[in-house]
Amino acid sequence: MSKIVDIGIKEQSSVCEQMRFSVSRASLLNTLSRVSGVVERRNAIDVLACINIKAQYGSIKLKATDLDISIFASLTANVSAEGEVKISAHTLHDIVKKLPTNLDVNFEMNNQGKLLISCGNANFSLPNVVSNNFPVLEEGDHQYDFTLLSADLVDLLTKTKFAVSLDDTRYNLNGIYLHTDEQFLYCVATDGHRLSCIKRPKPEDINGEFGVIIPRKTIMELLKVLDDCNEINIKLSDRKIKFTCGEYILISKLIDGTFPDYKAVIPTSQDKQMIVESSKLASVIDRVSVVVSDKIKSIKFSLQENLLTLHSNSQECSDATESIEVDYDGALMEVGFNSRYLLDVLSCIENKCKFSLSDGNSATIITDEDDPSALYIVMPMRT
Amino acid sequence: MSKIVDIGIKEQSSVCEQMRFSVSRASLLNTLSRVSGVVERRNAIDVLACINIKAQYGSIKLKATDLDISIFASLTANVSAEGEVKISAHTLHDIVKKLPTNLDVNFEMNNQGKLLISCGNANFSLPNVVSNNFPVLEEGDHQYDFTLLSADLVDLLTKTKFAVSLDDTRYNLNGIYLHTDEQFLYCVATDGHRLSCIKRPKPEDINGEFGVIIPRKTIMELLKVLDDCNEINIKLSDRKIKFTCGEYILISKLIDGTFPDYKAVIPTSQDKQMIVESSKLASVIDRVSVVVSDKIKSIKFSLQENLLTLHSNSQECSDATESIEVDYDGALMEVGFNSRYLLDVLSCIENKCKFSLSDGNSATIITDEDDPSALYIVMPMRT
Repeated sequence: MSKIVDIGIKEQSSVCEQMRFSVSRASLLNTLSRVSGVVERRNAIDVLACINIKAQYGSIKLKATDLDISIFASLTANVSAEGEVKISAHTLHDIVKKLPTNLDVNFEMNNQGKLLISCGNANFSLPNVVSNNFPVLEEGDHQYDFTLLSADLVDLLTKTKFAVSLDDTRYNLNGIYLHTDEQFLYCVATDGHRLSCIKRPKPEDINGEFGVIIPRKTIMELLKVLDDCNEINIKLSDRKIKFTCGEYILISKLIDGTFPDYKAVIPTSQDKQMIVESSKLASVIDRVSVVVSDKIKSIKFSLQENLLTLHSNSQECSDATESIEVDYDGALMEVGFNSRYLLDVLSCIENKCKFSLSDGNSATIITDEDDPSALYIVMPMRT
Repeated sequence: MSKIVDIGIKEQSSVCEQMRFSVSRASLLNTLSRVSGVVERRNAIDVLACINIKAQYGSIKLKATDLDISIFASLTANVSAEGEVKISAHTLHDIVKKLPTNLDVNFEMNNQGKLLISCGNANFSLPNVVSNNFPVLEEGDHQYDFTLLSADLVDLLTKTKFAVSLDDTRYNLNGIYLHTDEQFLYCVATDGHRLSCIKRPKPEDINGEFGVIIPRKTIMELLKVLDDCNEINIKLSDRKIKFTCGEYILISKLIDGTFPDYKAVIPTSQDKQMIVESSKLASVIDRVSVVVSDKIKSIKFSLQENLLTLHSNSQECSDATESIEVDYDGALMEVGFNSRYLLDVLSCIENKCKFSLSDGNSATIITDEDDPSALYIVMPMRT
């Protein structure tokens, strides 16, 4: 368990009554839509449903937390009187969404400890949640400190996040494994049925090697802020990770577990290779799996020279089959897949994809012909 | 209970084995999206999950039913061999949605009693559900036969359907009351808390007066086909209603109940009138109700000369208030409303709306300043 730190605000009672600022509705909405996702909708503890707003020196600083993730944001504001307030994050977000566009929003504390929000003719008053402290995650001493292009991190995360396990009992698979070896920085995710592994050249500012598991919710919240900056700084401490991206800082606990030795399961004996346009194969898979009414939509691949035939059938005796021309000169073979797993992979590949196969009982590797840094593994299914 | 008629197809076994036709994917999809909604997703009886397709004379005829509604459609097809088949309506619809656009879809019965569907390289086979009859609603002898402009009926239905009661125990309010008096044809719906009443001049081909209750599902399915024709013919029998609209026929049971004497509850003593732009008022209501977290979002209207102030508050001590300029010269008054009911009404009024009020305990009448044929009543709420 991580310690929660009280960053006490001793001057609160005297300052809050006077707090007053105005801020552009557009930029406030933009910030709230990136910050309020951290706050859970249902909270036993009042202060965890809140966003903490601190007005000072021409800007306002927002923070929110669910005790596993803390997020901080800053935006320019016209501050007439400094102060701090804690109000319901989702109520504030809902209000700002409905406000007239192109106007400024005015905030002011009144004598009754209520926050008054006005914009155009609309006036709202929200209670300031009384709490002397707002929990934030302690950052910890960082052992690694490096910088990535935001676009690179978006690519690493979006091409792996779909393979993260949703099974809460497998907590060490409930996140993306961010790790390094001598040459590369990797993001890896697996749910035991499929695996996704994307790499980038290791940033020069990383000395040594590390491996940490970033929780699923952290990934989702991080992706919301990543388009706000060109570069993202990452600091790693013992049990935490800190992302600094433009006006946003996100600190998250890491998953306290060991990621499986995935490199050992990457098969190497595939003797057959099939190459096909990713989007074309995806639409064939989508079509052929339509008759399958089960939750897991399984389909069968039958390969012969330059021709892939997909087949599926349902318990209701419906079946579907469609052939597609492919580059393939291996032996005849059949293999079954979960169609959802293939569609997830193909959505990450823009042009041609390559399937490397051995037989119907072995894992298949899918790669992006344009991007040697991406590797996907899908396990076969009995069909 | 209505009788279900067997329109037996004696020649089925000999003809079906040869049935073959092709049809444009776009027009088939268009028809299926209007027809398959009648079929319930879960059915204890196999044949009720089916759509019946009969190919003959350069066209195919589709029919589907849930025993309360029967729908029939016809579309041009290239029929090489006549025949009839019953296949899963939703599976067929799902398949056609995924097929490549701009191609024809080919249908063929094979020797094993399966329907083969092909389009481009995709092939599907669906089982023909064996049943010697397909249930359809008997039309009955009609006592009324009249024609409306489709656009008029769309207007009548869309401006009343939101007020239909969802409470299954009040079965006589679970539909729209279509009735006539000497001068007008009316559509009326109420759930006891609000009422919507739209009228049109009575079509000349209606002799006498009638009043029938059209079930909610029938309204929804009817609205799907109404944009396919300029005029719609309506035939009324004792317990059924038949709509003929372009290539679609919809026959529905009527609700066997008595609609309340709604004209008796339309208040007449409103001495105060407020006029305001409908869309402006709607956005104020939408904004002010945002702080209310209850399921029923109640708001309070406070009226003074030329000014309406809306107010709401939540259990969490948040509140909201906003004023809007209106045309009003009556006495000061306050009245509470369910904001959802007001928004439903205002969405039907394009320009200015008029509120006719008496006091905070009485019903309010809302009318469309541009359309004297529309009348809405909303009951007050304690706030």
